Amino acid sequence: MSHRFFVSADAIDGGRASLRGEQARQIATVLRLAPGERVVLVAGGEELEASLERVDPREVEAAIVERRAPAAEPRVALTLALPILKGDRTEEVIEAVTQLGVSALVPYVSARSVVREAGPAKRRRWEKVAREAAETSRRGRVPGIAETVEWARLFDVLPAPIVVAWERERDRALTDALAPSERLSLVVGPEGGLEEAEVVFAREHGAVTASLGRRSLRSEAAAIAAVAVAMSILDR
Amino acid sequence: MSHRFFVSADAIDGGRASLRGEQARQIATVLRLAPGERVVLVAGGEELEASLERVDPREVEAAIVERRAPAAEPRVALTLALPILKGDRTEEVIEAVTQLGVSALVPYVSARSVVREAGPAKRRRWEKVAREAAETSRRGRVPGIAETVEWARLFDVLPAPIVVAWERERDRALTDALAPSERLSLVVGPEGGLEEAEVVFAREHGAVTASLGRRSLRSEAAAIAAVAVAMSILDR
Repeated sequence: MSHRFFVSADAIDGGRASLRGEQARQIATVLRLAPGERVVLVAGGEELEASLERVDPREVEAAIVERRAPAAEPRVALTLALPILKGDRTEEVIEAVTQLGVSALVPYVSARSVVREAGPAKRRRWEKVAREAAETSRRGRVPGIAETVEWARLFDVLPAPIVVAWERERDRALTDALAPSERLSLVVGPEGGLEEAEVVFAREHGAVTASLGRRSLRSEAAAIAAVAVAMSILDR
Repeated sequence: MSHRFFVSADAIDGGRASLRGEQARQIATVLRLAPGERVVLVAGGEELEASLERVDPREVEAAIVERRAPAAEPRVALTLALPILKGDRTEEVIEAVTQLGVSALVPYVSARSVVREAGPAKRRRWEKVAREAAETSRRGRVPGIAETVEWARLFDVLPAPIVVAWERERDRALTDALAPSERLSLVVGPEGGLEEAEVVFAREHGAVTASLGRRSLRSEAAAIAAVAVAMSILDR
């Protein structure tokens, strides 16, 4: 399978592509690809099959030989609202849910959040993980990662319908809360759980609560499971 | 919520419990619980509510005040066959799928497996992760972790029906491969994928192949997603 790179629109000029920086270095020095070998460039939601012509760690030039639509983008635009988790756990979730097909991630902070802020280095790391996961899973686009918001603002930025996974919901399973739709927002709670008042607030702002099953899940397992189940139903 | 501990049957004697070793140390020194506080002991598939009487790092004694069946065990006995993954990735999968409710884990080695052996230290670590994840997710039992087997032997040890998640299966989605059943075995491939001959061998031994969707998933995301989707359908 060809190596895939997300490139910016200005790297493409008609039938030619020019890559610099980290991507040129990777092609020339890490992957050691040679002129004549093929790579796949993804730009503006389009897949471009490109034949390498000049390979240099500072600049790689290629000729575009085919354009096609990526096959792996889901039919549903799924937004995942995720608490900032301890250590590398947010990265692990971003990697898995990007592979599973989320369109956007919204980090949030709620009353019982343990980690309340993500600095610029953390955010750059998240974006790198999302880009690499989108490349390896053969997606046509990289999920956007929104600015971190407080719970009080979360429901202003999430597209409806909104489903909040809540461990104290006993009547409505996630599978029953999902109706065919072109978009969906899923909210997963922080390690300490959501407060009752936060759930009331969410419902007042149009969200429904749903159960992920009878076992207590940590936030990262809950996030990956919720996205997997939603995709199994909405992206058929 | 009370702290939960899986204890061996010989820790319980009629209406009394006696804990030693790591669990006594944890109650006395780490959690600093006091006489009169309650813990939940899980033994032989039963939940025992116990009131602490004597708390000492070498021995904790408690009176059993209530016995009940755990509510969180799934209706389906799900066995997950998992390649040994690099670094901590196997632990991450064991933690998540234990929370999601698997009954047993079967580590295996196939043609393209990168990691081909797990030493005793690794195995003890897996067992610890499974026990802790079963405790925090409020399950009634800890999933068993089988001996590592080669692909050629895998289908002798997996209970039928067996579904192999395979990225080249395009026709049958996992959701379509699941029929109501009291048991199910799921097989997830290694990082390098399964070889065609291995898939043929699996089919000859009664397995069916199924797709987890159109995006390429890494083994750990595939394992968590497959278990989550299977539980959403079979444990209703």
